[in-house]
Amino acid sequence: MKTHPRCAPCLLSRVQFEAELSTKDIALQKMAVLAGIEVLRKYLVDGAPATHLSTKIHREAYRILGDIDPYREKKQQSNEAAKKLLPLARDFVAQKDSFRRAVLVSIVGNSFDFGVLGFDADKEIGKETIMEQFERGLDVDDTDRMKSMLKNVVYLADNCGEIVFDTLLFEEIRKLGGKITLVVRGAPILNDATMKEVRELGLDRKVDRVLTTGSNAIGLCLQEAPPELVEALGEASLIISKGMANYETMSEYNFRPIAYLLKTKCESVAEAMGLKKNMNVARVEC
Amino acid sequence: MKTHPRCAPCLLSRVQFEAELSTKDIALQKMAVLAGIEVLRKYLVDGAPATHLSTKIHREAYRILGDIDPYREKKQQSNEAAKKLLPLARDFVAQKDSFRRAVLVSIVGNSFDFGVLGFDADKEIGKETIMEQFERGLDVDDTDRMKSMLKNVVYLADNCGEIVFDTLLFEEIRKLGGKITLVVRGAPILNDATMKEVRELGLDRKVDRVLTTGSNAIGLCLQEAPPELVEALGEASLIISKGMANYETMSEYNFRPIAYLLKTKCESVAEAMGLKKNMNVARVEC
Repeated sequence: MKTHPRCAPCLLSRVQFEAELSTKDIALQKMAVLAGIEVLRKYLVDGAPATHLSTKIHREAYRILGDIDPYREKKQQSNEAAKKLLPLARDFVAQKDSFRRAVLVSIVGNSFDFGVLGFDADKEIGKETIMEQFERGLDVDDTDRMKSMLKNVVYLADNCGEIVFDTLLFEEIRKLGGKITLVVRGAPILNDATMKEVRELGLDRKVDRVLTTGSNAIGLCLQEAPPELVEALGEASLIISKGMANYETMSEYNFRPIAYLLKTKCESVAEAMGLKKNMNVARVEC
Repeated sequence: MKTHPRCAPCLLSRVQFEAELSTKDIALQKMAVLAGIEVLRKYLVDGAPATHLSTKIHREAYRILGDIDPYREKKQQSNEAAKKLLPLARDFVAQKDSFRRAVLVSIVGNSFDFGVLGFDADKEIGKETIMEQFERGLDVDDTDRMKSMLKNVVYLADNCGEIVFDTLLFEEIRKLGGKITLVVRGAPILNDATMKEVRELGLDRKVDRVLTTGSNAIGLCLQEAPPELVEALGEASLIISKGMANYETMSEYNFRPIAYLLKTKCESVAEAMGLKKNMNVARVEC
């Protein structure tokens, strides 16, 4: 996916958000924002993939802030919130159509994201909100096609919180005889899941193998990815790509078949997919 | 009010918003956004009033877009929407406590604003939404103090839409024996009211005199204001300053007494006033 002019204020707002998470020192926050402005000035260029710009801007902000993980606490909070809601989600999945519902639940889990423009990070996600989102269902539903491709899944995880809900989909994939290679970020970036959360949540026991993207790039940067990940992507019977950042990168490569599971939380991703904002999407591309 | 780092992404998002209003040409939108980035890089400096920066960034965006009024249609829409809801607002004011309620209604009218970060411009404001906002009442209520100061009011107007609701407050001020000098922007900027709307809505018949700020500066820039406005501000028994942009500028000067009527739609204004976001505020400073 390519950068749109509207990505600029959104990225800058996220830099400012993480600066506030990281420090109360307004002067330092401002330095991070000014560094973000400088990155935008240099790299908001035509045709560049959106994630190139976002990787650059966040790395620069982290460097200025002297903080390798401004989302530390937010990630913990997201996981705790998701764990509390997991029994409700599990019941919902168990009632009927369990594979489709597990896909839906894993997409709704993406609502635990923080810092996307217009998303209210202070609003606690309660039972009612989550049930409303479950009831909405999938707006794009290729889950039946996914079911026949589960033999050897590479699962590109996204945020903390969300990854707790992903476990219900891991269970469904395994029930249907599939093997799972879970891929998390190689180092902290935004509120994305890393090996730390894999260990804390015992996710390694719920999948067959865990790999990382090899770096803290937004989404997946092939140049920074370990060879075993590149190999796994090439051999997968299905890549499951969770969330917008993974879409933004994976849509630049040609790995197939791939299932994009995400909520279209911004105009730019929605437009790139030919969809509207705020849709629950499970789309397979072969 | 001084600039905060969080003003940077908000201003840039508004530039992008008006670029999209003005043109479908993505390349031109991007030029406006890049021009905005350049202004932020140069002028996001400590201690500068927020409106200096915002005036510069919007003037530059308008120049790049070659458009003196990107909000043309939005303003029309806001006025139409407000006119439809005016009878409801009038009933609400007439029921009891008419001065206080007219103040509240004029503040709620500020919800017809478009383009503030996080504010959903596509959401139509219906009867239910507006009644909910009326029922909320004032969070800061100095209306009783205002009532004794109405002899010679200078009324600094804010947005289109909002200004339709302001007419109910004009009526109350006049009922209480007050005279009104209405002040609108000297040229189009954002969705603020200008002489064009004064004429279209017949506002000159509802007040005693109409002046302008003399330019398209955000809020009121004294250096660009006509002498009769400076004189009127100095002689007023009460300045009524509507909305955030007027607060941002008037809080830099020493005209007194002044009543700030606004909704704290952003953290920065809320913080500067020692309040929380999303409050309905009628605060007198003497």
